[in-house]
Amino acid sequence: MSGLVQKDVLIRRARESDLPALIAIFASDAVGGHGDTTASDAYEDYLKAFTAIDLSPNERLFVAERDGEIVGTFQIMFNRTLTGRGGLSMIIEAVQTRADTRGQGIGAMMIDYAVSEARRRGCRLVQLTSNMARQDAHRFYERLGFAKSHFGFKMKL
Amino acid sequence: MSGLVQKDVLIRRARESDLPALIAIFASDAVGGHGDTTASDAYEDYLKAFTAIDLSPNERLFVAERDGEIVGTFQIMFNRTLTGRGGLSMIIEAVQTRADTRGQGIGAMMIDYAVSEARRRGCRLVQLTSNMARQDAHRFYERLGFAKSHFGFKMKL
Repeated sequence: MSGLVQKDVLIRRARESDLPALIAIFASDAVGGHGDTTASDAYEDYLKAFTAIDLSPNERLFVAERDGEIVGTFQIMFNRTLTGRGGLSMIIEAVQTRADTRGQGIGAMMIDYAVSEARRRGCRLVQLTSNMARQDAHRFYERLGFAKSHFGFKMKL
Repeated sequence: MSGLVQKDVLIRRARESDLPALIAIFASDAVGGHGDTTASDAYEDYLKAFTAIDLSPNERLFVAERDGEIVGTFQIMFNRTLTGRGGLSMIIEAVQTRADTRGQGIGAMMIDYAVSEARRRGCRLVQLTSNMARQDAHRFYERLGFAKSHFGFKMKL
């Protein structure tokens, strides 16, 4: 998976040096409610997770970079199920565009990149969930060709 | 993960010999629309998928067995994200109870098993999606403590 350049935005795999910018993006997301924080005592947890994702054969964390700044991020994960005749699926997680760079097509570039990668790997399906409060995101995903066909259920432990 | 016995139902990891029964369950699911079939020329695809899942460190396929018959199935998958302070999540996929054994608590046993396993592994979150047409399933998941907080978007490739 090489970087994809379009306009002035580069989509590439995340590097450890991107972590502070990524944490800041997640921490500023009021909707998700995942308790993310830029507090320094949390950094080690993020670094451990980054390393685990980076080493995983089935998971990839990406960033969108413009002028040396991180303006977006998403993660992809591949999973195999018996359903769909034993097919491979891609799950897209943690899609975020930095608040001040929304509406500029960065999100669409990121999703296009993920879907292209799913086709390349022979996936039968790409799926993601989006918080019900994110109505703009729902229109966005439907515009990109996703069907809003399911409810997403979450249980916090 | 050892088997969990409750009443007369055993939850255990799927074995290759369970495949014909599992395929029959998926093939009889009219809602999913995943194109599953008991046709013999599809068997090899299912077997390959079973083997891949069985070898994966992050995925586990389970069955519910009663009196030597497969009466249900589900798959779990673990994934790490930066969000949630780098926490681990569990995704539950492909939950099915055999049509003629519904309403007997088998589904609840399977989900309880998955959630227990998520706690044991230190997951911060358990998530799943359910087709909007499966209204009984939505009530079922909410009864078990899941929040219907998201929409699930799918793109078939």
